[in-house]
Amino acid sequence: MSDGATWNSLHLLGLEDYSIGEIEMIFKRAEEYLPLCRTGGMKRDDLKGKMIANLFFESSTRTRMSFSLAARRLGADTMDFAPSGSSISKGETFIDTARNIEAMGVDIMVVRHASPGAPHLLSRHLNASIVNAGDGAHSHPTQGLLDIFTIRQHKGDLKNLTVALVGDILHSRVARSNINGLLKFGARVIVCGPPTLVPDELRQLGVQVAHNLDAILPECDVVNMLRIQFERQRSGMFPSIHEYALLFGMNSERLARAKKDLLLLAPGPINRGVEITPEVADGSNSVILEQVTNGLAIRMAVLSLIADERTKRANQKKVGHSPIEPAAITR
Amino acid sequence: MSDGATWNSLHLLGLEDYSIGEIEMIFKRAEEYLPLCRTGGMKRDDLKGKMIANLFFESSTRTRMSFSLAARRLGADTMDFAPSGSSISKGETFIDTARNIEAMGVDIMVVRHASPGAPHLLSRHLNASIVNAGDGAHSHPTQGLLDIFTIRQHKGDLKNLTVALVGDILHSRVARSNINGLLKFGARVIVCGPPTLVPDELRQLGVQVAHNLDAILPECDVVNMLRIQFERQRSGMFPSIHEYALLFGMNSERLARAKKDLLLLAPGPINRGVEITPEVADGSNSVILEQVTNGLAIRMAVLSLIADERTKRANQKKVGHSPIEPAAITR
Amino acid sequence: MSDGATWNSLHLLGLEDYSIGEIEMIFKRAEEYLPLCRTGGMKRDDLKGKMIANLFFESSTRTRMSFSLAARRLGADTMDFAPSGSSISKGETFIDTARNIEAMGVDIMVVRHASPGAPHLLSRHLNASIVNAGDGAHSHPTQGLLDIFTIRQHKGDLKNLTVALVGDILHSRVARSNINGLLKFGARVIVCGPPTLVPDELRQLGVQVAHNLDAILPECDVVNMLRIQFERQRSGMFPSIHEYALLFGMNSERLARAKKDLLLLAPGPINRGVEITPEVADGSNSVILEQVTNGLAIRMAVLSLIADERTKRANQKKVGHSPIEPAAITR
Repeated sequence: MSDGATWNSLHLLGLEDYSIGEIEMIFKRAEEYLPLCRTGGMKRDDLKGKMIANLFFESSTRTRMSFSLAARRLGADTMDFAPSGSSISKGETFIDTARNIEAMGVDIMVVRHASPGAPHLLSRHLNASIVNAGDGAHSHPTQGLLDIFTIRQHKGDLKNLTVALVGDILHSRVARSNINGLLKFGARVIVCGPPTLVPDELRQLGVQVAHNLDAILPECDVVNMLRIQFERQRSGMFPSIHEYALLFGMNSERLARAKKDLLLLAPGPINRGVEITPEVADGSNSVILEQVTNGLAIRMAVLSLIADERTKRANQKKVGHSPIEPAAITR
Repeated sequence: MSDGATWNSLHLLGLEDYSIGEIEMIFKRAEEYLPLCRTGGMKRDDLKGKMIANLFFESSTRTRMSFSLAARRLGADTMDFAPSGSSISKGETFIDTARNIEAMGVDIMVVRHASPGAPHLLSRHLNASIVNAGDGAHSHPTQGLLDIFTIRQHKGDLKNLTVALVGDILHSRVARSNINGLLKFGARVIVCGPPTLVPDELRQLGVQVAHNLDAILPECDVVNMLRIQFERQRSGMFPSIHEYALLFGMNSERLARAKKDLLLLAPGPINRGVEITPEVADGSNSVILEQVTNGLAIRMAVLSLIADERTKRANQKKVGHSPIEPAAITR
Repeated sequence: MSDGATWNSLHLLGLEDYSIGEIEMIFKRAEEYLPLCRTGGMKRDDLKGKMIANLFFESSTRTRMSFSLAARRLGADTMDFAPSGSSISKGETFIDTARNIEAMGVDIMVVRHASPGAPHLLSRHLNASIVNAGDGAHSHPTQGLLDIFTIRQHKGDLKNLTVALVGDILHSRVARSNINGLLKFGARVIVCGPPTLVPDELRQLGVQVAHNLDAILPECDVVNMLRIQFERQRSGMFPSIHEYALLFGMNSERLARAKKDLLLLAPGPINRGVEITPEVADGSNSVILEQVTNGLAIRMAVLSLIADERTKRANQKKVGHSPIEPAAITR
């Protein structure tokens, strides 16, 4: 399906910017890299000499580590920058910080920020490439990509597959990136959770809205159990944890009423006993740890496609000082 | 002595698991690596492409840094994971954390944990190799190895050597790993300190118990001054610092009554003026800084022996996905 | 001008130790490295196998990162050591800490410390080379070097150039290193700020003292806007921020009354709206981001000149254990 498609992006901001063909190019390269991501995998030099900076204005261990490892598995050098206490309200300082780091010779900046659109803003002010590692409740494109990549590994074509996203859809950037990608590939998407966290207005995204997991579960081929972000919940929007687990948690009894080959995803870290019971998390339907490994491969693919594009443009220009055009002309 | 011995361990959990021949293999390789560990030493590629993760559930700067440097001197890539606030009471979360990190393609995990047995537990649930960097008061095998390695450099054969461990033996994993290794090599071991910290029951470990340093010092060939871990002391078990230094500290007067070639070790960081006075710490009997350098060489040796064993088994199996057998069959 | 000069220093402690010829050697090498420092720049192996440790007893993100990147761009390995809560009052512990880190095979130690002279002290007790990354209000030599390097890029010869340092001169190590270097190269230096922060006694440094920026600005070829270190101000020494910005801040109106080609430096991070208004910081007179890139090149040059000297001495001696003579003989 990627035949004829070409990759010409300097940034990865959100999945809405890409065609199926471009996403297939990411998947194809991720598949090449996958053997490197497993224990015992070797290192490559594809990104040798490249400097990749992590700018995480929201704390994160797993995603940051995954991007760092992805970069280093390809021979790039990495640096971590974790500003303490920053918000988009200090807009100028935010851009200043990024431009200072860029001035140290950074090629690609991986950015996580609490404010939706922060990575997009940077992409307009910097020559470095920007990869969105999560901006508020807006988008988390590499998570969306790795989830879809994992589903395809197990289910093949996504067309006519029924995929349910369960939990707090309202505040979830993972949900938004999943929905975007899944619809693009022709899947039927159901979002399911308490009415406060899955309001009817979400139908405008092109998905089916449900509040009863047991009612929709028998139709599902895939269920993606979103993590309850307790830190993001406001009082009154969320039932008790016990009640949540009872209504929307995945357990053995519920699993028994689903399709035999139901594929169970969870972006992690999971709250065992809340979204998923331990025996289900470790059971044969679960692909939670595969998602982690696939995430590494997806991030390697994204970084190397962007680096290739930078090299291509630099060779076209052969400008000494700044090999990349001002950000304005890129997308 | 290592003739005929073979190394076939995937993990390093405690010295009790190894024969003299196997420990000699570690020492032999450490000697090869030692020139690399000194200032001006070069880097090797023995572990190129390997990913080694530090999982330190107890904070530590020196040991973590030593393992990181050991890995990188051999060309491995490293990642540090320092979970904030974790205990074995969250047993499942602990294993989940480790398995998630493993899923990022980790070959060897260096683990420090406040709970005795935590590394052993991981070794049964992961395919990655586990190196114990200290588990509670139980074991700190690389510290034991580097202490014995340092003694042998200066004293040759350990048989019939009298080695005193001075200080808080009760709570010390360094003491336990020293005792285990020293007895294996035929040394006579005396543990010496206040009765509350060196109770008579310790005789069951096969050592001599003493409470008067001046009485045993003239017989000693080696004294290992354990660090007083003020943070681990409960009230009532410990005399005043002044009294401790008076009774169990090493100073010039005391040193004058010891054998001329007494070898003085201390695992560091030392509390100057408590366990050791500055002039003795910096004097000619002290090998404190050599221990640091030897520690690097020992850790390089352990990591590379384990990596070799992993490669050997992977070549035997030629299994695509997971080159290493489930942990159950390993030791 | 560097013809005939030779570099024979194992340390970089302060600019007062160097001749013009030696500084020219740093600049010459920095120019060679500059293309590597820009986005898209490649990596070199000049420092392969070298271990460079950052010992930052005062917190810093930018300078530490710049040194790390400089080291890694040249193929060195780096380690960061950030002791929590340390002061020169624990003199022995400070040296112990450094010697322990040195014993892990460190070649060059980059040191920042709140106490003036701390790096000099280390250089007398260690075999590793010491690079001063800022000691109290005393010296910050690589910042001085990068500022002068940046001025020369734009203005050529410094002789008879008028350079004003504006702000808190009294507490600024950046000011001290600038003054030292600028005077050496024959520039006329004016220090300008409130009388409490720029007392008349500073004339003894060989500079002109001024308290009215508008009076001196028309004569200036270069203005270096020092950052107001709010954390270092004691009450009573400093006017209100508003008043400071009014009297000593750079803004469009003020800039209009300066020479057309006035060069505007700032060591960063800047307090936008205090020392410099945003439109001036981002305007064509400002070289703030160039300073960041030049800083990387200067640090690469310093590290590699020192590494070369270490190699030269090691080859002369061919001593196995410690290739470098005791620090006493070095300067």
